[in-house]
Amino acid sequence: MTREQQVLDRIERMRRRKPVVREERITLAHGAGGKATQTLIEAVFLEAFRNPMLAPLDDGALVRLGDGPVAFTTDSYVVSPLFFPGGDIGDLAVNGTVNDLAMCGARPVHLSAGFILEEGFPVADLRRITASMAAAAERAQVTIVTGDTKVVERGKADGCYVTTAGVGVVEQPVTLSASGARPGDAVIVSGPIGAHGAAIMLARDDFGIEAPITSDTAPLHGIVAELLKVLPRHVRTLRDATRGGVATVLNEVARASEVAVVLDEERIPVHPEVTGVCELLGLDPLYVACEGRFVAVVDGEHAGQALDTLRAHPLGAEAAIAGTVTADPPGLVLLRTAFGGTRVVDVLVGDPLPRIC
Amino acid sequence: MTREQQVLDRIERMRRRKPVVREERITLAHGAGGKATQTLIEAVFLEAFRNPMLAPLDDGALVRLGDGPVAFTTDSYVVSPLFFPGGDIGDLAVNGTVNDLAMCGARPVHLSAGFILEEGFPVADLRRITASMAAAAERAQVTIVTGDTKVVERGKADGCYVTTAGVGVVEQPVTLSASGARPGDAVIVSGPIGAHGAAIMLARDDFGIEAPITSDTAPLHGIVAELLKVLPRHVRTLRDATRGGVATVLNEVARASEVAVVLDEERIPVHPEVTGVCELLGLDPLYVACEGRFVAVVDGEHAGQALDTLRAHPLGAEAAIAGTVTADPPGLVLLRTAFGGTRVVDVLVGDPLPRIC
Repeated sequence: MTREQQVLDRIERMRRRKPVVREERITLAHGAGGKATQTLIEAVFLEAFRNPMLAPLDDGALVRLGDGPVAFTTDSYVVSPLFFPGGDIGDLAVNGTVNDLAMCGARPVHLSAGFILEEGFPVADLRRITASMAAAAERAQVTIVTGDTKVVERGKADGCYVTTAGVGVVEQPVTLSASGARPGDAVIVSGPIGAHGAAIMLARDDFGIEAPITSDTAPLHGIVAELLKVLPRHVRTLRDATRGGVATVLNEVARASEVAVVLDEERIPVHPEVTGVCELLGLDPLYVACEGRFVAVVDGEHAGQALDTLRAHPLGAEAAIAGTVTADPPGLVLLRTAFGGTRVVDVLVGDPLPRIC
Repeated sequence: MTREQQVLDRIERMRRRKPVVREERITLAHGAGGKATQTLIEAVFLEAFRNPMLAPLDDGALVRLGDGPVAFTTDSYVVSPLFFPGGDIGDLAVNGTVNDLAMCGARPVHLSAGFILEEGFPVADLRRITASMAAAAERAQVTIVTGDTKVVERGKADGCYVTTAGVGVVEQPVTLSASGARPGDAVIVSGPIGAHGAAIMLARDDFGIEAPITSDTAPLHGIVAELLKVLPRHVRTLRDATRGGVATVLNEVARASEVAVVLDEERIPVHPEVTGVCELLGLDPLYVACEGRFVAVVDGEHAGQALDTLRAHPLGAEAAIAGTVTADPPGLVLLRTAFGGTRVVDVLVGDPLPRIC
């Protein structure tokens, strides 16, 4: 019997025993490492993420990644509320780490998941989150192979925090870096921006605004792979526009590459509902988080081909060339407004939207 | 200029600019992804973990792990208090993940670190934690190559939670699993148990007890490598005895391997100070967490050789053969007491020591 079969067998035996979490809410015992932890792992995590590599009784997972470069990344998720139109902390945690790997030019392969749960957190909500993680993992074709659970006392967390880490394999030689932009490059935005942040704000219900906005959370490795297949040598930088939005990503690129980025306000894709909500709340969509959009800096001569490639993918149907890279003034992002003026799009100061992801 | 040189250059430029965190306490802006986050990353994390692969401006790190099996693991740390005799949450988070990789038979190579910070957390404490992580990483010869920081509002965390993930390379073919124990095997404990848990309890200061106990937190990959070098084919199971202690680990082994583990109370190494504190608090040292001790199940015929190998290492000077594996009763851990009786060492129920790691 191979090791894989043995593990599958063990999972089967565990499943036949059908461990049941009898508590409706998480207790400190669920984090103690004993019987309650074991039951929680088997009845919730193993049930949701079932795969032969997930080894709840071992200290880690053994995987094979091949001889090439490996991308390794992590993100913690503390979004509030945990459930929002278009997604929840679970698919956010999977897609976010999948996307960070994709931005390195890697094919995402395996994920880990660390949970910090607050005593009293409803077990039903945890099941909803793990189900959503499992669905997102399946969609992104990644496997959650190892994990951890801690429980803290009431008032020492906010229900559930999730930290995912991921490994991916780089299958074609690409050089992607925030410092790779050069004058003459085009700045492409993969789709309409700001929907995730706007959806979270509406879900918080602090504002009494209603609008048909859902989070854009999505795995971007597929569309990125298409782009890199067509233009392996002409994509300079890929960044997903999460916390701080497109403005923050481009400021990092301008700074790291010592170039200027000049955006054209009229060409930045934003849905009118998002623009509307942002206006009501006094926010600039350029700073609002997306969870399924990225910025690609591409050799200007190949910008059209890049755009066509992105638009051919369902997640890039509304992609647009939103700006260009120039030599001066280095380190700055400028916006040509619809009225013909130019203003500096500065680095984000303060936090207009705490706990957006 | 190679990519590595470019990155080192960029780090040098950043260092010359000497970003300074002017706030004494963490604010929500430090988690927003903008200017304050950037400064925090550069002035605190990059300063502490400085290495060419740590790419604060990119979404992940590219590493090379070779063609063999790769071990991948994660753990979240929520220990309270954050600082305790013998260590803090920082070295715990590094050593814990290093040890999980070591228990897979892997040489730990790279770590990620995700921070969840509470608004108001002292920046000086964060520096102390990152300095301690850097020192632990250097001792364990691992590199912290990627990370993330989130900030939550006051009252939504407890100062600082850290989630580390790690990758390691398996350089010799070993088969280690909780399900690998067989009748006739010896159960070896690598050193005196329970010191970490006892140190944490004393540090909580709830009990008014004073005793010269420090945490046993330590990286175990070195001593494990020695053992596997000498006995590559005769070590069945390696588990570090953290949450739930030696009793929990052995229950998992007994259950997964469908064997019994029979412990000899007189041969389990425990320091008298730890025994004393546990007696005062009504705890059994077998259930108390260690952070630098492991249990090895070894082919009985090679137990003496295994013990000699462990004792030759500074972290194993007090290693002991504490029990044996028998066929019956499958799934149970038994303890032969000093008085000649036998009792079942059951799976931990409830949580006697919340937030021990």
